[in-house]
Amino acid sequence: MLNPTIITQLQAIVGETRVKTDADSLKTWGCDWTKHYTPSASAIVFPATTEEVQAIVKLANQENIVLVPSGGRTGLSAGAVAANNEVVISFDRMNKIVQFYPADRMVKVQAGVVTEQLQQFADEQGLYYPVDFASAGSSQIGGNIGTNAGGIKVIKYGMTRAWVLGLTVVTGKGDILHLNKGMMKNATGYDLRHLFIGAEGTLGFVTEAEIKLERKPRDLRVLVLGTPDFDSVMKILSAFQAKLDLTAFEFFSDLAVQCVTASGDVQRAFPEATPFYALLEFEALSPAIEEQAMQVFEQCMEEGWVINGVMSQNETQAQNLWRLREDISETIAKYTPYKNDISVLITHVPAFIADIDAIVQENYPDFDIVWFGHIGDGNLHLNILKPANLTKDEFFGKCQVVNKKVFETVQKYNGSISAEHGVGMTKKPYLDYSRSPEEIAYLQAIKLAFDPNNIINRGKIFDVK
Amino acid sequence: MLNPTIITQLQAIVGETRVKTDADSLKTWGCDWTKHYTPSASAIVFPATTEEVQAIVKLANQENIVLVPSGGRTGLSAGAVAANNEVVISFDRMNKIVQFYPADRMVKVQAGVVTEQLQQFADEQGLYYPVDFASAGSSQIGGNIGTNAGGIKVIKYGMTRAWVLGLTVVTGKGDILHLNKGMMKNATGYDLRHLFIGAEGTLGFVTEAEIKLERKPRDLRVLVLGTPDFDSVMKILSAFQAKLDLTAFEFFSDLAVQCVTASGDVQRAFPEATPFYALLEFEALSPAIEEQAMQVFEQCMEEGWVINGVMSQNETQAQNLWRLREDISETIAKYTPYKNDISVLITHVPAFIADIDAIVQENYPDFDIVWFGHIGDGNLHLNILKPANLTKDEFFGKCQVVNKKVFETVQKYNGSISAEHGVGMTKKPYLDYSRSPEEIAYLQAIKLAFDPNNIINRGKIFDVK
Repeated sequence: MLNPTIITQLQAIVGETRVKTDADSLKTWGCDWTKHYTPSASAIVFPATTEEVQAIVKLANQENIVLVPSGGRTGLSAGAVAANNEVVISFDRMNKIVQFYPADRMVKVQAGVVTEQLQQFADEQGLYYPVDFASAGSSQIGGNIGTNAGGIKVIKYGMTRAWVLGLTVVTGKGDILHLNKGMMKNATGYDLRHLFIGAEGTLGFVTEAEIKLERKPRDLRVLVLGTPDFDSVMKILSAFQAKLDLTAFEFFSDLAVQCVTASGDVQRAFPEATPFYALLEFEALSPAIEEQAMQVFEQCMEEGWVINGVMSQNETQAQNLWRLREDISETIAKYTPYKNDISVLITHVPAFIADIDAIVQENYPDFDIVWFGHIGDGNLHLNILKPANLTKDEFFGKCQVVNKKVFETVQKYNGSISAEHGVGMTKKPYLDYSRSPEEIAYLQAIKLAFDPNNIINRGKIFDVK
Repeated sequence: MLNPTIITQLQAIVGETRVKTDADSLKTWGCDWTKHYTPSASAIVFPATTEEVQAIVKLANQENIVLVPSGGRTGLSAGAVAANNEVVISFDRMNKIVQFYPADRMVKVQAGVVTEQLQQFADEQGLYYPVDFASAGSSQIGGNIGTNAGGIKVIKYGMTRAWVLGLTVVTGKGDILHLNKGMMKNATGYDLRHLFIGAEGTLGFVTEAEIKLERKPRDLRVLVLGTPDFDSVMKILSAFQAKLDLTAFEFFSDLAVQCVTASGDVQRAFPEATPFYALLEFEALSPAIEEQAMQVFEQCMEEGWVINGVMSQNETQAQNLWRLREDISETIAKYTPYKNDISVLITHVPAFIADIDAIVQENYPDFDIVWFGHIGDGNLHLNILKPANLTKDEFFGKCQVVNKKVFETVQKYNGSISAEHGVGMTKKPYLDYSRSPEEIAYLQAIKLAFDPNNIINRGKIFDVK
């Protein structure tokens, strides 16, 4: 329970109705999409300006109150969960588009702007915001920046990091910093903007961001190709990338397709099942490019890497093909999947997948694995489905055992234990599989430079002594 | 003078002949392209491995020796100048391509690899390294990373930062860190890689880097357009960008063209002089794209934004047109230019240029200004030419006065006092025009976290108490 004086002080900053302590609110804003931790916030505060956030941080430092940032609450690593009586700072009210700079193709937004809202704003200006993923309808820009969100267009457009030209932040100490101020080129000392991107709110609060926009993609074509084995997926990637600028290259296994099509809403791309599928997207900017794509397709058929395939003929078909990939997460949810979001060099992907398959096969031959991911950038989503005869606790217990072996394999290939979901609390015990003890010591030192009292998002990513 | 025992210890690390103390070597490796400081190194050391660099750093910490990193020595801010008896660590021997990863389109290189060497290696693999600038024949990758080098293709390809997938560094403390290990996606805590990029060697030494490569550009066309005034340059940028993906958009004034053509080697794009010129480049991937460009060109003529223009018909012509822009720095060198490398939002460029012109006109009506730059990304090179009747010292003295007003104007428009040259020693006194006192305090704290004894490149960017 929070001291009533603190509540009064918080109300003085944001307004009486902007501090919530009812049980429903505490539960709603106290958690994200991860369900491993029980939310236990002590209050939810809704600031409207950078200055209000600063006042809250200063109060928190005085009174030793721990603050947790909260965006669209779509996180998958419990980076925004308040499990220890923290005060949650929600950015729901900071949802304004602040200013558009047409000549710079840039827009300044508040941190609480929803991804889809930004995408729509860009569209209205005849432009495009290319970071996109399944939770774009809820996730907020501030949260995307906190985890350096990736998604399905990274192969062409990069991560969130590539689109952030400037940040306004309130550090853990309570300083307001305007980082990089929207410039494309600025070589005036360490780029603190990039330190805050991916920091999961542990250095301070992102309150505003200057975001770059891009020209709209034109004439997108989607191909779904059925392959006899995983190695063929890699060969297809290589063959297409040599000739075309791909805007996406995804893969998924047939088990994923079975889950997606089970609902009846989505049709298979072609009747025959194949073990794996590649989904490619590119801009058919001219007939020559489309012809080029068809040539590579035929070459892949001849080589035996592709058994069957289709190319979208119009936008509706393109959208339907995308659903085969985009609906996976939602349709496997009922099998209580144990999710891993890992990354290795593309060079190492085939050997890595073979190793993991062998580990699961050896330890839990009755577990089903759904593989899918953004193979064009080495990012694999490994989802282990809960067998019906196990309780959730039994299943997660067994997964913890597999987990260790999975992360040992990640380490063996110099990979990442979290490609795009962040570390938060769920991956914290495993951080040393991807970062050395020396690195972690520097992370801790940087944390203390920005947040000496460890007030902001304490206990996320790593602990500080 | 360095203690002879130290020399012996350094020789024990790198080999007897790899430590130079003769006057010529001290002068050669003690400086970069800036000529404001007298080089005064105490020794030049040529390590061959990351481990040798680590051993040197550990020795330096024990013995309180200050180290200066040295790459291709093409820096323009004295970031790699040893003016205070430092020991210079040259990366000339660490010039190997370490490993190529075709599936990842990535190459691991040592820090001493020359930019052009990397460009050629990429070319041999059928790929492309897009960071390019006038000093590419000498500058080293380690130095490019230290200043986050930009150049002429930033509008499409971004800065050096966009191409660095991993770094091996030796911190000021002497730790070897492998940062990000070449991954496209990795959300496991603060991305220290981005902290080292642009740090001008003040946090530690970059010894190796994983560099991303790109497909080769195809069918590049270059347009040079003559404009009646600067505002038209901005309108041309906007008109072309709405229809085409530009790979470059540069501008320069007629005075620049006069300097370049004076030598007789390079011809004007067309006989009539116009006050300003825009140079555009794009990939003519299809006839439709080329036609699109011609339509925009005609529209710009009709609007009166373009008085005259040419488009390259073959590669030789393209290269010749590029020389109008690329040869500026070299040909104005004989006028002892006072160089500024500044950046503001594109939105603010016209007002900014008008302000600066007025300042120089008011204070020194006899000074000639050569404007040129990467206008597509807001980066302006302001070069003030020395009148023949002033000595170098008199001229630089007067420039210091203008400088303050220039930087005040940069600050007024929230710009950068160094877009791509870095801060080093030459811009250090002006850092607070672009970074707030609070920001600088965080920079200092980060510096001390990585280099508590202030051993590495002391006195560059900022001082540490």
